[in-house]
Amino acid sequence: MKPILNRIPETLLLGPGPSCVSKEVREALAQHTIGHLDPSFIEIMDDIKTLLQVVMNTDNQLTFPISGTGSAGMETCFVNLIEPGDSVLVLSNGVFGTRMVDVAKRLGANLDVLEFPWGTPVLADQVATQLQAKSYRLVAMVHAETSTGVCNPVPEIGALVREEEGTLFLVDAVTSLGGIPVQTDLWGVDALYSGTQKCVSCPPGLSPISFSDGAVAKLQSRQTKVPNWYLDLSLIVGYWQGGTRSYHHTAPINMLYGLSQALQSIEDEGLEKVHARHREVHELLVSGLENLGLELLVDPRCRLPMLNAVRVPSGIDEAEVRASLLERDRIEIGGGLGPLAGKIWRIGLMGYSAQGENVLRLLEALEKHIPVDN
Amino acid sequence: MKPILNRIPETLLLGPGPSCVSKEVREALAQHTIGHLDPSFIEIMDDIKTLLQVVMNTDNQLTFPISGTGSAGMETCFVNLIEPGDSVLVLSNGVFGTRMVDVAKRLGANLDVLEFPWGTPVLADQVATQLQAKSYRLVAMVHAETSTGVCNPVPEIGALVREEEGTLFLVDAVTSLGGIPVQTDLWGVDALYSGTQKCVSCPPGLSPISFSDGAVAKLQSRQTKVPNWYLDLSLIVGYWQGGTRSYHHTAPINMLYGLSQALQSIEDEGLEKVHARHREVHELLVSGLENLGLELLVDPRCRLPMLNAVRVPSGIDEAEVRASLLERDRIEIGGGLGPLAGKIWRIGLMGYSAQGENVLRLLEALEKHIPVDN
Repeated sequence: MKPILNRIPETLLLGPGPSCVSKEVREALAQHTIGHLDPSFIEIMDDIKTLLQVVMNTDNQLTFPISGTGSAGMETCFVNLIEPGDSVLVLSNGVFGTRMVDVAKRLGANLDVLEFPWGTPVLADQVATQLQAKSYRLVAMVHAETSTGVCNPVPEIGALVREEEGTLFLVDAVTSLGGIPVQTDLWGVDALYSGTQKCVSCPPGLSPISFSDGAVAKLQSRQTKVPNWYLDLSLIVGYWQGGTRSYHHTAPINMLYGLSQALQSIEDEGLEKVHARHREVHELLVSGLENLGLELLVDPRCRLPMLNAVRVPSGIDEAEVRASLLERDRIEIGGGLGPLAGKIWRIGLMGYSAQGENVLRLLEALEKHIPVDN
Repeated sequence: MKPILNRIPETLLLGPGPSCVSKEVREALAQHTIGHLDPSFIEIMDDIKTLLQVVMNTDNQLTFPISGTGSAGMETCFVNLIEPGDSVLVLSNGVFGTRMVDVAKRLGANLDVLEFPWGTPVLADQVATQLQAKSYRLVAMVHAETSTGVCNPVPEIGALVREEEGTLFLVDAVTSLGGIPVQTDLWGVDALYSGTQKCVSCPPGLSPISFSDGAVAKLQSRQTKVPNWYLDLSLIVGYWQGGTRSYHHTAPINMLYGLSQALQSIEDEGLEKVHARHREVHELLVSGLENLGLELLVDPRCRLPMLNAVRVPSGIDEAEVRASLLERDRIEIGGGLGPLAGKIWRIGLMGYSAQGENVLRLLEALEKHIPVDN
């Protein structure tokens, strides 16, 4: 192997993703490549679909990974579910809600946006008022807002959307899936997308999605072709579903090996235990941060366990701290984005990274950077 | 590792892609995941860009892999370079030319198509006539048509397009790159996309692209936003180029390790030697097939070395032969697509698969299936 790859430094990934990847998953990636229509590969695809249904808590037949990163999943959901002029409501309180707005606008949606301050959650009563005032083809929101560490009330909003006939409910579960419960069917989610590099702890490159019967019906009743051949689900299902698997594009074979193993590791540990582990390391981190005199951005009632936004104390160069943690300690944490740039650190405790010893290692390293009087 | 992954059968991949992946590349895939903004990763990105410029024979600054398979590369080129109503000419003689037509139509192009029979090349004189009759914003064609094994005359068409002011030239180099010379700059190609799972012999999942200054100028002077956030190059360049690398989407880290190693292997062997090896194994295959009484679909003057379309002799169930080769001999070859379904086999000799011993192994296995009187 070439030197530049041989010297990739092992890094404790405690940022907003990617998270650390286990030896088993990395070994899976390195298995022999086989053909994308090989019966042995079809078996692996079917296995991935089943494991995804478990972690997503859904019976949706259309449940499989898109061949792109989480943002490709977002693009897939919007481009398949809306047509120019469709009324869309986006609930936004961070980078990924903002991105939804950008994606939907480019596709010609008739767009309304309910904005909530970054670091605070979407408020159900405001959404209820909006839904009473106007009807929508699609309501979209982010479950775990990675840019702020806020957990948005997807079950409550789902209940509101379900009362609206003909309205589909689209949820970003990129950072939540595998870290906190994601009840796709129970919450009435019609379209869900996620990523692999957060709590699933497979390297980035795939975006698992799931579509309800209602979402599939919308797809089938489109008046216009999906303006994106690569992400057109009406074509991709021919490869991922049914008896005859027909070629659409060449699937990312080895990445799918990795995803199969990563999902298996969750299944083996048990989904509830995995969620409990995320909560426990989060509590360990929070109490350690408080001991260091550090404060979290988000109210405890809507904090995500896997993404902790920490206020940077005044007088500290937050970028320098991150650079030093990375260079000296080989620990990666994230900085703030948008209005929170320079104001917060983002500490991720995701998937394989979410272990008590990793929290202790970070706290010890952070302590060196925090002035004593804090 | 889970049993289903442990028992992935090592397979000699001699189909239309993916090709076999070397141990070095598979080991690269399995390296520790690091952050997509880690300086160590930026170094690897820069290395990939330089290696791509070499194999593509270009000085284009905008040269990097898109986070999706080859078809995502096609989508990227069209969605960035055309706006609704733009006049586009597609030269089509196979599946991938047909796909270009579908992609461009969905984007609202004012589209003309010059069709040539499958198994025959694009004819420059017909293209010249068409370019005299009408002016286009974009002319698009496939270099190595994977569905038929035809090498299209990209240099000749490039010379014609260069005479047209304001016309961009878009080339699909998915199957050609790394197998036959691809002279991006010399041929006047403005936008080129490729895949990793053919002659580059990295697993599928990435699409290297390259844009000329003319293509970048078109991108910068668009009247409308690119209707695809995920593939919007005006955003992605902020991550792949320049001093400050800003987050767009999370790059497929481990896949990029694999691409870096796969491109290094080509550089180490030497690009000309790699091309010569593809020619030599092709000749070995052709003479072996002729000894078996088998005929190739394509005229010798425009045959691709890395994709050999072989006529199925009458009375032979071609799908049964392929299934038996795969099950008994663990050799994958491809079948025909569209009008060639059932009529041809497609034998790929791509990248790491393109070795004399592999050709001999295939010929020996094929011999068992061909009636003696052939």
